Amino acid sequence: MSAPSRERLVELRRAFHRRPEPAWREFWTTARIVDELEAMDVDELLVGPEVLADGERIAVPDDEELRRWYRQAEEAGANPETLERLRGGHTGAAAVLERGSGPTVALRVDIDGLPRAESDDDAHVPAREGFRSEHEGAMHACGHDAHVTIGLGVLEAVAGSDFSGTLKVCFQPAEEAIGGGKPMAESGLLDDVDYLLAVHVGLDHPTGEVVAGVEGFLAVHQFRADFSGESAHAGGRPGSGRNAVQAMAAAVGNLYAIPRHEDGVTRVNAGRVGGGSATNVIPETAYIEGEVRGETTELMEYMRDRARSVIEGAAAMHDCDAELTPEGEAPGAESDDAVVDVVEAIAGRTAGVDSVVRNDDLGGSEDATVLMNRVHERGGRAAYVGVGTDHPGGHHTATFDVDEDSLVPGVEVLAGTILALARDRP
Amino acid sequence: MSAPSRERLVELRRAFHRRPEPAWREFWTTARIVDELEAMDVDELLVGPEVLADGERIAVPDDEELRRWYRQAEEAGANPETLERLRGGHTGAAAVLERGSGPTVALRVDIDGLPRAESDDDAHVPAREGFRSEHEGAMHACGHDAHVTIGLGVLEAVAGSDFSGTLKVCFQPAEEAIGGGKPMAESGLLDDVDYLLAVHVGLDHPTGEVVAGVEGFLAVHQFRADFSGESAHAGGRPGSGRNAVQAMAAAVGNLYAIPRHEDGVTRVNAGRVGGGSATNVIPETAYIEGEVRGETTELMEYMRDRARSVIEGAAAMHDCDAELTPEGEAPGAESDDAVVDVVEAIAGRTAGVDSVVRNDDLGGSEDATVLMNRVHERGGRAAYVGVGTDHPGGHHTATFDVDEDSLVPGVEVLAGTILALARDRP
Amino acid sequence: MSAPSRERLVELRRAFHRRPEPAWREFWTTARIVDELEAMDVDELLVGPEVLADGERIAVPDDEELRRWYRQAEEAGANPETLERLRGGHTGAAAVLERGSGPTVALRVDIDGLPRAESDDDAHVPAREGFRSEHEGAMHACGHDAHVTIGLGVLEAVAGSDFSGTLKVCFQPAEEAIGGGKPMAESGLLDDVDYLLAVHVGLDHPTGEVVAGVEGFLAVHQFRADFSGESAHAGGRPGSGRNAVQAMAAAVGNLYAIPRHEDGVTRVNAGRVGGGSATNVIPETAYIEGEVRGETTELMEYMRDRARSVIEGAAAMHDCDAELTPEGEAPGAESDDAVVDVVEAIAGRTAGVDSVVRNDDLGGSEDATVLMNRVHERGGRAAYVGVGTDHPGGHHTATFDVDEDSLVPGVEVLAGTILALARDRP
Amino acid sequence: MSAPSRERLVELRRAFHRRPEPAWREFWTTARIVDELEAMDVDELLVGPEVLADGERIAVPDDEELRRWYRQAEEAGANPETLERLRGGHTGAAAVLERGSGPTVALRVDIDGLPRAESDDDAHVPAREGFRSEHEGAMHACGHDAHVTIGLGVLEAVAGSDFSGTLKVCFQPAEEAIGGGKPMAESGLLDDVDYLLAVHVGLDHPTGEVVAGVEGFLAVHQFRADFSGESAHAGGRPGSGRNAVQAMAAAVGNLYAIPRHEDGVTRVNAGRVGGGSATNVIPETAYIEGEVRGETTELMEYMRDRARSVIEGAAAMHDCDAELTPEGEAPGAESDDAVVDVVEAIAGRTAGVDSVVRNDDLGGSEDATVLMNRVHERGGRAAYVGVGTDHPGGHHTATFDVDEDSLVPGVEVLAGTILALARDRP
Repeated sequence: MSAPSRERLVELRRAFHRRPEPAWREFWTTARIVDELEAMDVDELLVGPEVLADGERIAVPDDEELRRWYRQAEEAGANPETLERLRGGHTGAAAVLERGSGPTVALRVDIDGLPRAESDDDAHVPAREGFRSEHEGAMHACGHDAHVTIGLGVLEAVAGSDFSGTLKVCFQPAEEAIGGGKPMAESGLLDDVDYLLAVHVGLDHPTGEVVAGVEGFLAVHQFRADFSGESAHAGGRPGSGRNAVQAMAAAVGNLYAIPRHEDGVTRVNAGRVGGGSATNVIPETAYIEGEVRGETTELMEYMRDRARSVIEGAAAMHDCDAELTPEGEAPGAESDDAVVDVVEAIAGRTAGVDSVVRNDDLGGSEDATVLMNRVHERGGRAAYVGVGTDHPGGHHTATFDVDEDSLVPGVEVLAGTILALARDRP
Repeated sequence: MSAPSRERLVELRRAFHRRPEPAWREFWTTARIVDELEAMDVDELLVGPEVLADGERIAVPDDEELRRWYRQAEEAGANPETLERLRGGHTGAAAVLERGSGPTVALRVDIDGLPRAESDDDAHVPAREGFRSEHEGAMHACGHDAHVTIGLGVLEAVAGSDFSGTLKVCFQPAEEAIGGGKPMAESGLLDDVDYLLAVHVGLDHPTGEVVAGVEGFLAVHQFRADFSGESAHAGGRPGSGRNAVQAMAAAVGNLYAIPRHEDGVTRVNAGRVGGGSATNVIPETAYIEGEVRGETTELMEYMRDRARSVIEGAAAMHDCDAELTPEGEAPGAESDDAVVDVVEAIAGRTAGVDSVVRNDDLGGSEDATVLMNRVHERGGRAAYVGVGTDHPGGHHTATFDVDEDSLVPGVEVLAGTILALARDRP
Repeated sequence: MSAPSRERLVELRRAFHRRPEPAWREFWTTARIVDELEAMDVDELLVGPEVLADGERIAVPDDEELRRWYRQAEEAGANPETLERLRGGHTGAAAVLERGSGPTVALRVDIDGLPRAESDDDAHVPAREGFRSEHEGAMHACGHDAHVTIGLGVLEAVAGSDFSGTLKVCFQPAEEAIGGGKPMAESGLLDDVDYLLAVHVGLDHPTGEVVAGVEGFLAVHQFRADFSGESAHAGGRPGSGRNAVQAMAAAVGNLYAIPRHEDGVTRVNAGRVGGGSATNVIPETAYIEGEVRGETTELMEYMRDRARSVIEGAAAMHDCDAELTPEGEAPGAESDDAVVDVVEAIAGRTAGVDSVVRNDDLGGSEDATVLMNRVHERGGRAAYVGVGTDHPGGHHTATFDVDEDSLVPGVEVLAGTILALARDRP
Repeated sequence: MSAPSRERLVELRRAFHRRPEPAWREFWTTARIVDELEAMDVDELLVGPEVLADGERIAVPDDEELRRWYRQAEEAGANPETLERLRGGHTGAAAVLERGSGPTVALRVDIDGLPRAESDDDAHVPAREGFRSEHEGAMHACGHDAHVTIGLGVLEAVAGSDFSGTLKVCFQPAEEAIGGGKPMAESGLLDDVDYLLAVHVGLDHPTGEVVAGVEGFLAVHQFRADFSGESAHAGGRPGSGRNAVQAMAAAVGNLYAIPRHEDGVTRVNAGRVGGGSATNVIPETAYIEGEVRGETTELMEYMRDRARSVIEGAAAMHDCDAELTPEGEAPGAESDDAVVDVVEAIAGRTAGVDSVVRNDDLGGSEDATVLMNRVHERGGRAAYVGVGTDHPGGHHTATFDVDEDSLVPGVEVLAGTILALARDRP
């Protein structure tokens, strides 16, 4: 078995890096993945609605936003037939290799970008070398461009090997919105899987380091709170309005002040907020797009319940109304020792890997856990693998970047693990 | 008619200044007033419960506090028989002069001190000249010592004059707590009054200036909010408490942020707050003693209703309970032109008065308005008179003081007005 | 003298209502005004930069925003030659009638719309009768469409009369941004003016009522506060960010809580706020577009200084930086009795006017005051006239509308006043 | 070796329970301990200043408060000679047994009560059985009454055994104020110690359970923040004050909102707050008595630095001043395996112990860590032992109580460990 060449992987990664598309808008990305899969010798190719349970998508943007990204994908030359299958934001895909008897192994990679602007500083390699985001305001700032590349690379590597069994590579949309894992899990795509691998690059591990089993996933709940009051002229009728921005601001301050919990890690963030219309008008509406997390599902629920009290109390304080909409939720999950053992052994003898860490904490959330839990429920096993990569900026910052030297080793560790798992029948 | 001598008035004022007693604790003060009244030739002397409607007192302190001040009055030599009549904090008194036919004129003075420490700086006259408060933490910081003195002085002056009619001088307790006006009004004491005068020294008017009719009283509502949650160890169980201090702090911030109103002046103050027991314990209880005001009763009610929303919402935000207790409420009131005319005329020819202002705004609240409204309802007339006095510090500050040169003119303007009103039958 | 017909005025008003353009974006509006002026017999026509002092415009939007509205005006058929003169958002115009000897009288009307969506409810006349805003998210919600109409109508009426003197009608941009008055004043356009009239419809006065001299202008200061911190992953690095949204929210809460002032009316509003980029990222930036007002310039400055303390303190609390940018400022101003006398007299005998109120408080701000003060400084006189109109929704709300029956009387009162002022030489 | 009888220990514990004295006020408690020590055959008895380094005490109350508790101890019959040695709040004591050659082993127990009221509910054993706190507002709500009892019991047990070596039992004051550990450490009392044991009852472990080595001490920093502004009349001069309660409330809200940290556990509490003087006065002063904690000293310092920013920023927001006074600080510390091994072994064969937990997290702070670190620095070893006891209410709550059945096993485990450590020379 050997991975595709560095050149091939770099070319793929840069193509995807150029066209970051946030959750449920991955039209061009999915179409390009499909193009690549069609060029390979895969046995089954599932697209969009075929990998997503009906009605289970979370945090889908409005029609206008979807149309805008759809059009943009069209203009960028995406295959119109594939696009047609993705209408309404049913993005994502999966490829199946059937190579005789043996276990079913799956690899899950996520494909979405982030709604944030990319640095145009010359010190930022994508800017300097000309593959910076062409979609202003969106960026592959978490390495999912590398994930897609690794997914395709692993497929090529395994396809060209003596693998015996079934391989499914799942290209999951909307990870950042904690929105794609659930519909993919509920589609049943993974219900026959013996082993599931998920992968993430970076996470503060340098190029050459592999984490065999990432742990410490935080359960997460994302929400949108909409505050509504009544507008009035700020000079002439200050006492006749009901100020939604006051309510929102009170909520923000008190959300962060939800008490820490003795049972473990908790998190809260009011990540995006806004409100009001004009300087001289008492604001009628305001919103918070936020999230809470917990080391366990119970802790996440503690935070979620307290957040509800804060938001409703803040609205009441200012005679406003608050409407809370859940936007996404993911549980925690654990890697199985049996799978981690295999990753650890394979990584230990892969060229380009200098250091293997058995376990490390993510300290974040990931809806891969929904898929891992689904596999666990059906009796399968799973591991979440970290592939180190030097990254100048932190994840989600404007200067995040992937060291392309980590692509080949990443593909080889995963493809090698898949072969080993298939040999070692469950 | 002539006022008592400056020496007499200064001696009285300093005696009262030395023993400031806050609302419903005016044991020594009332006893001393009664001593003075008994030494005069008054026709009727009403004490404590005789001038207060049963069950109408507001913001009465707890028994322990009352006992402490009672004992202190005893130790300071107050007449035990009078004290006995004041038990339970039924303080205050009234004297009636009946001198033949003529209208009934009343003068209301307030007698309570404030719960604040007095300056011991040498620049502060009471400190320098040795009549600073002997009750640490209490102070006559609003001139009620001068009011009592003027009340007694007016009685002496009128008693020694050719006055024909009835004069009632009412020594009202608990003005600062907005608590004494109502029970005195409802006792019926003023129900036969044709003319009511109330008086205040200072109010930023210098010695030698008289305001014939003070206006701009703000309607006021005072309250106590008690927040209760649940304590827990701050290090070991932070997520298991319900933090009453967080609730209180959120309420304070948002009380001041109640929107201004286009219809006029509003006010809000969280004047005294507290909470918690120890540094390392999640606070179980907290409280706010606060007030709202409005230029009209409607505006006061707007503030009161909004304050309730804020307090309840703040408690809800932190899973705490809030209990709101009204502590006192006073409406607005207006001086009658007919009475103001007389004050203006008399003041204009009183020695020591250089300047007469017809009307000026108080910009504060006063429960004299309850008495004025009672008199209005019964067909009588009223005016609230300002007697200027140079005061180095502002009202309610540690260096407030009264210029004793203003005492004699103050007595003469009021006594003169009473005589004129009695002559000029309604 | 007679005003243009009701049909003519209604047609104009609806045309302008359909195309509301916010501050400095009044491309179509100015071009249409110029079309109308060119069709009349005016002696001088000044456009854009000719009525705006160089470098004095405030709160000008960015180039992209300007280009968007410019293009939209082009597409809506605005005269390209006029548009060319307005490039970069130098909007507004003025027309001069020179009719022999006599005083110079000016009328100022404002022309901008508001950045808010218009109701599409059938009960809203513009929606029902088909002249609702064609620019989604913008609306003539303060009656400036009627002001432009009145400006043109007055010009037509005076042009067709026996007026002797000079008339200047000034179509001022960017009133809502408190941004157009200053550059127009500093252009010198009004420096030779003997009498200035400004006009506003509505203000809670019904159709048939005229306010001869509107008073109670609040001095205003508008600002933008930009908070900057540092982003980080909300799950993985919560302690490594510096949260600009927390800083902003703390500022909002405490801005509204700036203490009321005993010297008079104050106002504060955080009218538009926002911050953050994604749910799972610690917000790096946030902003407030806000304003403070005061009954006097001193009170406005008290609020402005306190607002600065709040904003800087809030940023410091969360280790963020704050940058404050003044966006606009207008002083108070008073109408001159001599002019108000004339308006009162004329209105009293104008058909369609049932009720004349001499003075009433605006309770808001207006940069007409900058122009009025300029005229006062040069020895001229001014009045701000209110033309009542039934309006179902309040100013700045989605259902604000103008009763078109008030247009003809409005034109006649103003044109009549101009003629009277010209006859009655100063 | 055998422990004193259950009766003896219960009698001691109830005597101390009846007279809880908060930090540096342990006059009666120390005098009673000294009485007990004098009745035993100890070789050295150190009192007050002899066990406290000069000038190192933290969070000492003011003279009046000290005098009040001193007098109360006198009235309760404390030995006047001992009291004399404790003047000024130099409380605490230590006893030394010298029994031939062998290692020096120390046991540290803390002796202070808490400033909180005790339940008088019949379900609360001390209330029902008549040994509830006789000092209203103070309570042994953390089991230090049991600690003192265990300290005395261990001394008696070891004194009556074949122990060879030196035993020091240290009765440390002011643990709750994080104030007594440091002066005791710096007195040098423990500088020759080979093994140090500290003990705590309860901590959610039931009667019959022993924790051989308690871990997870949080580093802690306690502080007092004093806010000062300027008072003014709330009705008449609201804009002329500077409101210290607004500043304090803003600080409270934002202290709890200091971001969680990815590196580990953090805590924050505003445990006691207050401010203002009267309902109608703008508050001039306010304070917070609070604390921050961290799983490591670095995390505590992160919280401490952020708290400083919050407090200073909050004061700046309201034009107030803030003064921060550190009140106490304790580091983390770890139990040594070698000592934990011995405790584990001994506990495993002690009657009344059903369950031995090797390690458990405290999740709180303790200034025993200062003493443990001092011993570590000098080459000695230490363990912090937990003695389970059923407690109906949580630590620091009004219904906390100790199951007296845990006293004998507690004494036996500790005395047994001391004997074992002495035999097993280092």
